[in-house]
Amino acid sequence: MIIRIETESDIPIYTQLTNQIIEGIARGEIVPGDSLPSVRSFAADLGVNMHTVNKSYHELEKKGIINIVPKSGAIIAPTNKMTEEKKQQIVTELKPVVAEALVLGMSQEEVQGLVSSILEDIKMS
Amino acid sequence: MIIRIETESDIPIYTQLTNQIIEGIARGEIVPGDSLPSVRSFAADLGVNMHTVNKSYHELEKKGIINIVPKSGAIIAPTNKMTEEKKQQIVTELKPVVAEALVLGMSQEEVQGLVSSILEDIKMS
Repeated sequence: MIIRIETESDIPIYTQLTNQIIEGIARGEIVPGDSLPSVRSFAADLGVNMHTVNKSYHELEKKGIINIVPKSGAIIAPTNKMTEEKKQQIVTELKPVVAEALVLGMSQEEVQGLVSSILEDIKMS
Repeated sequence: MIIRIETESDIPIYTQLTNQIIEGIARGEIVPGDSLPSVRSFAADLGVNMHTVNKSYHELEKKGIINIVPKSGAIIAPTNKMTEEKKQQIVTELKPVVAEALVLGMSQEEVQGLVSSILEDIKMS
């Protein structure tokens, strides 16, 4: 998996890292049971602060996407059945973006079309 | 429009405010040309720091959702035609959430179903 950090972006670096790891898992480039690099080596490879990698790992853990295991490090969590709690987490994140798309002038059909193309894009790449 | 700030939430207060304003516009409770309250009075009403309201207004301005006009304050921007730039902004925000939903165990169909129900929810409420 190739991580691209854009230092000029408005998106915080730890969020860029979190998002790219999630997208890497969604594409199947890394799978449950795989280890992520240690905070120290990942930070060195990416040329970012260790604190940034640490913040990203903790965010991924809170989302239920990795488990942080003492001595073993950050392990991609098994995909479990969708729970109501996880569904609510997704709704909470999805709703403001869907509302924003409508406010910026997209129709309902265009929003659905965009989601379809994103799904295609993730699965095809 | 009723704003509900949850101080116990993991979501930063300025983001909660930004999201609820966007959803209020999406539901048509506030419309282009309407003014948002002044930073000072909104902060007092919500019992939050003025800096928090200010940060939210600047985020809304950057997203193209409000215009901050000297002396007039924060005005809901007219809905213009969707530009390629705005579409990219939505894709950038939507893609990590869609990827997260897949990683957490949703199928593509479930993601699309969730988006449909969010669209219904916004339009019906």
